Amino acid sequence: MTLIDGKATAATIKAEIAARVEEIIAAGGKRPHLAAILVGHDGGSETYVANKVKACEVCGFKSSLIRFEDDVTEAELLAKVKELNEDDDVDGFIVQLPLPRHISEQKVIEAIDYRKDVDGFHPINVGRMAIGLPCFISATPKGILELLQRYGVETRGKKCVILGRSNIVGKPMAQLMMQKQYGDATVTVCHSHSTHLKEECREADIIIAAIGQPDFVTADMVKPGACVIDVGTTRVADPTRKSGFRLNGDVKFDEVAPLCSYITPVPGGVGPMTICMLMLNTLLAGERSIYAR
Amino acid sequence: MTLIDGKATAATIKAEIAARVEEIIAAGGKRPHLAAILVGHDGGSETYVANKVKACEVCGFKSSLIRFEDDVTEAELLAKVKELNEDDDVDGFIVQLPLPRHISEQKVIEAIDYRKDVDGFHPINVGRMAIGLPCFISATPKGILELLQRYGVETRGKKCVILGRSNIVGKPMAQLMMQKQYGDATVTVCHSHSTHLKEECREADIIIAAIGQPDFVTADMVKPGACVIDVGTTRVADPTRKSGFRLNGDVKFDEVAPLCSYITPVPGGVGPMTICMLMLNTLLAGERSIYAR
Repeated sequence: MTLIDGKATAATIKAEIAARVEEIIAAGGKRPHLAAILVGHDGGSETYVANKVKACEVCGFKSSLIRFEDDVTEAELLAKVKELNEDDDVDGFIVQLPLPRHISEQKVIEAIDYRKDVDGFHPINVGRMAIGLPCFISATPKGILELLQRYGVETRGKKCVILGRSNIVGKPMAQLMMQKQYGDATVTVCHSHSTHLKEECREADIIIAAIGQPDFVTADMVKPGACVIDVGTTRVADPTRKSGFRLNGDVKFDEVAPLCSYITPVPGGVGPMTICMLMLNTLLAGERSIYAR
Repeated sequence: MTLIDGKATAATIKAEIAARVEEIIAAGGKRPHLAAILVGHDGGSETYVANKVKACEVCGFKSSLIRFEDDVTEAELLAKVKELNEDDDVDGFIVQLPLPRHISEQKVIEAIDYRKDVDGFHPINVGRMAIGLPCFISATPKGILELLQRYGVETRGKKCVILGRSNIVGKPMAQLMMQKQYGDATVTVCHSHSTHLKEECREADIIIAAIGQPDFVTADMVKPGACVIDVGTTRVADPTRKSGFRLNGDVKFDEVAPLCSYITPVPGGVGPMTICMLMLNTLLAGERSIYAR
């Protein structure tokens, strides 16, 4: 069994990005610049954004953090998005989700210039990904592809079962895994209404669990030799921790791991790859590799 | 076994659309207007466009046919697209594909105002469909959903195997069949590189064959009681026909049909639904049901 080390892989990729940035600077180019809009003071969002800013430093990017209080109006937020769209120095930017309820997340996402949408959430990027055109691919599915590739997990023609059909993981993951130029696998998407979910899993060469239910995937659902990717990160109460909780994956790791050819741990598997892929998208934006501007 | 009669269903839907148009006119509204751009004189394209114009008449729509010769430049075509985008009387329009090789189809598609893109090929419509937002859904997958619904084929939680991963059928079909608001099924997409394609089919409650290989789906691949939707329309030489060819589906109809709960014939199954769904999208465009303008 090989443990897929997302933390180490992410560190390697960030070092590769930093080296590329040095090349760009040495050639007289511009330092990639990522901006982030953060609304309010949600603990999770604060942590994510702080980690993104930190990752920018590691990669040699310029970063800007724009803060609004919870009572910002939709119009004010849209005006800032417009400003960032028009700011030639900003190569890519994100609006940290979730937003307060009085603001339409979809409206804000669609206001972002898709050529700066390094989160890959704009319908143009979602649509271009679906039909196999160059685009910004959202971080979590992109990170999983990267892990499979770097660990040499064979995907072509294999049966890949994806648990969950969320817009940010399950659906894009399915689209990528089925495409010839990415996974080229036989893809099955299971969800809460699937009647033969366990049977599907038992036949899978690759399981990607993104269903948000701790310990959902048990040993009886996994074929010996399968590769298991765990996207789950549910906070579970844990009095032995200082924080009072731990992050629990969708996979019952202790009993599943011995069966696997490859498995990702939680934490330290898919999680660290996410911010790293945002950095990669920012580099691509800075280099105008995907869209001219 | 129930034969799914696409021709009759399409006629019913067109009559429903015509009745709705009469209501709109009676209420002082505007007649929906579909425009079509046709480049060159390809026999297939001529027939398709002529059938679309005819269907517009049946539905009570206004239609406009804009013709260009094969040597039209990309710039000329893009200028016409812009003109139709800006023409307030035109509710929706299509550019009949394929285009001559010197013109980028993708560029032309992306130039269409997505609010008039009744073919549903613009990345914004593709992306919005993928994440479950209101949009123009392309005709073939939309027609298949409509057939399943009108014949009362249960899809929720069922295993649906899609053969083929084309941008116009396989991929959008998978996205629709997996979504809660449409198929809500467990979806598997198989293709030329799938190693266990036959086994997947044998377990399927619903097979949607869009692989473009005549008689590909044989009796040994179909579970008794399955519903089989045949999207294939390959021209096969047939000296007994005046035309010299017949349309052949992806399913070996004679041996598969007796096993099925439901099956679509070729021709007369999915085919007639396609133009009919273009008409439905044009009605939705005329009513501004999906996008304001």
